[in-house]
Amino acid sequence: MVTNPSSRSMGTVAMRWHGDSLELLDQRLLPTEEHWITAEGAAGVVQCIADMVVRGAPAIGISAAYGVALAARHAGADDWQAEVSQAIQELAKSRPTAVNLFWALERMEQVFNSCDSLSDAAKRLAAEAVRIHEEDLAANLAMADHALGVISPVQPISVLTHCNTGALATGGYGTALGVIRRLHEERLLTRVYADETRPWLQGSRLTAWELSRDDIPVTLNADGAAAAIMASGKVKWVIVGADRITANGDVANKIGTYSLAVLARHHDIGFMVVAPSSTVDMSLASGIDIPIEQRDGTEIREIRGIQLAPAGVEVFNPVFDVTPAGLIDAIVTEKGVIRNPDIIGMRALFS
Amino acid sequence: MVTNPSSRSMGTVAMRWHGDSLELLDQRLLPTEEHWITAEGAAGVVQCIADMVVRGAPAIGISAAYGVALAARHAGADDWQAEVSQAIQELAKSRPTAVNLFWALERMEQVFNSCDSLSDAAKRLAAEAVRIHEEDLAANLAMADHALGVISPVQPISVLTHCNTGALATGGYGTALGVIRRLHEERLLTRVYADETRPWLQGSRLTAWELSRDDIPVTLNADGAAAAIMASGKVKWVIVGADRITANGDVANKIGTYSLAVLARHHDIGFMVVAPSSTVDMSLASGIDIPIEQRDGTEIREIRGIQLAPAGVEVFNPVFDVTPAGLIDAIVTEKGVIRNPDIIGMRALFS
Repeated sequence: MVTNPSSRSMGTVAMRWHGDSLELLDQRLLPTEEHWITAEGAAGVVQCIADMVVRGAPAIGISAAYGVALAARHAGADDWQAEVSQAIQELAKSRPTAVNLFWALERMEQVFNSCDSLSDAAKRLAAEAVRIHEEDLAANLAMADHALGVISPVQPISVLTHCNTGALATGGYGTALGVIRRLHEERLLTRVYADETRPWLQGSRLTAWELSRDDIPVTLNADGAAAAIMASGKVKWVIVGADRITANGDVANKIGTYSLAVLARHHDIGFMVVAPSSTVDMSLASGIDIPIEQRDGTEIREIRGIQLAPAGVEVFNPVFDVTPAGLIDAIVTEKGVIRNPDIIGMRALFS
Repeated sequence: MVTNPSSRSMGTVAMRWHGDSLELLDQRLLPTEEHWITAEGAAGVVQCIADMVVRGAPAIGISAAYGVALAARHAGADDWQAEVSQAIQELAKSRPTAVNLFWALERMEQVFNSCDSLSDAAKRLAAEAVRIHEEDLAANLAMADHALGVISPVQPISVLTHCNTGALATGGYGTALGVIRRLHEERLLTRVYADETRPWLQGSRLTAWELSRDDIPVTLNADGAAAAIMASGKVKWVIVGADRITANGDVANKIGTYSLAVLARHHDIGFMVVAPSSTVDMSLASGIDIPIEQRDGTEIREIRGIQLAPAGVEVFNPVFDVTPAGLIDAIVTEKGVIRNPDIIGMRALFS
């Protein structure tokens, strides 16, 4: 596969690092408004992650790493160790499901533990955060390479995706959307069908926005229409990201992903999960061990303050669901591909 | 099955007939506002159907019948036949997919063709419309009887439904929601999971409202969460309505229904379609012959005027999908039940 990196767009990034502050694109206001929020300290980053200013498992991990760097940058000379340690703990509590968050914080903590002065910590933690960011981008490019080997299209295909896994959700380029970006670069993409992805509408607000900006042909659909699209024969692959992958290859991802996996299998359509190896959590045996974040019912009962359902009606609002490995054709990471994932395939790559 | 009709609520009706006008509850404004629109002539009814003031296949059919009655009521003495005939044609064009509309208009046309004076037509067409309405209500009660025979729960169960098939969608009581209502009356219902049903959110706006009013326990969920609910073992049956059923037992219903049928089969959960026999169209061999209404992309790009996606992004917005008979465990009509529907079972009941 010959690609031309010079012609490659990394997409619209979700964060800008300035050494002493982190700017985050407020993804809650897209697609109508592009507003950047400056997080001047770790507490600001915690808030931005919890409030979903920034979202997407890799982007959360990178932001958290910058948050630790900010904690060191702004720490007092006397109790810098307690302050950074506290920041790491607060950042770890900002979102519960995405494992990249904990992975990034662990990397930062290891560096932190080896620092013997505040100035050393400030410098090295910032460098480590930048490294995490750069590695994520490189991983996304590698995943796209691997994924095209799996799909190996002989002519342009259409695909379906869910949520947002693009430049906005990562350090740039994207995971699942990076693969789609690569298909487009190689002129092997006819069209992307993007689930609107209720309740947060990441498909409408972010994926459609990001793809439109980059002139990648996108058609938006209600989540409930994905099955009809598959039945029509329009798509060859469903390509999604992941928030956590367990030792047996089960995948936690945005609510609705599991539905797509069942539907793809029924229609004999490929189902691919694309995520950096930092998403893999070999400490969990299977998907039932993954803590699933439940969010407030208001997200279903309302959209932007407009009441859609009777006030106070009970709501079931899990943010993620678990797709069993048996429904997945390929898990693609920067370290390689696991086809028909199971514990053996996972261990071969991640032990 | 012993029931106590006196304790039975027919639910909140969507229409009130006054002999010379038809009042329709504006379902677009629920659940926040209960506003009734008076359709004084057939043209008003056409508008209300096209604009989805009234929706739900049986309610559309009944409203159209009242529309024909109104045309006769308001017709001029000289050209009443042309006026009524014209009204029937306009009403037939108001929505394309629901066959009850055409069925009701055909019944009205037969009466109309046998009328020899305007006063005769005005009287008999009004009587026929009322009869269609009353028969629909009776059919819903009969369907609930049949359905409970199929489900035959030995203890309370939870079920999942899609869109709105309640009193609001029919002449009263409901089709699929009538079955759920009956389960509740018999103390055999633990809980209803209601898909919010994008894009029109009939689940949030109508089903949750109707069930809350009648103190039937309801939990609202994003359409994409239905699979996770099924995987958790929470529901025993998926119960939905239909807009058209073809000769082989294929079912057109609200977009997202087909998805639920695939998911129910995967999870070994029962999938039941409940609809009056007027929904059956034996003239169509199979689901591929059903015209599927496509509506404007604005319904996906916006909610109540609030922009959710980039302006002008392409949208795939079919109102209905087709569930093949092979995924359906039972089609329940007032005439009886067809288990594992196919052309033989359909012909046995509908030829």
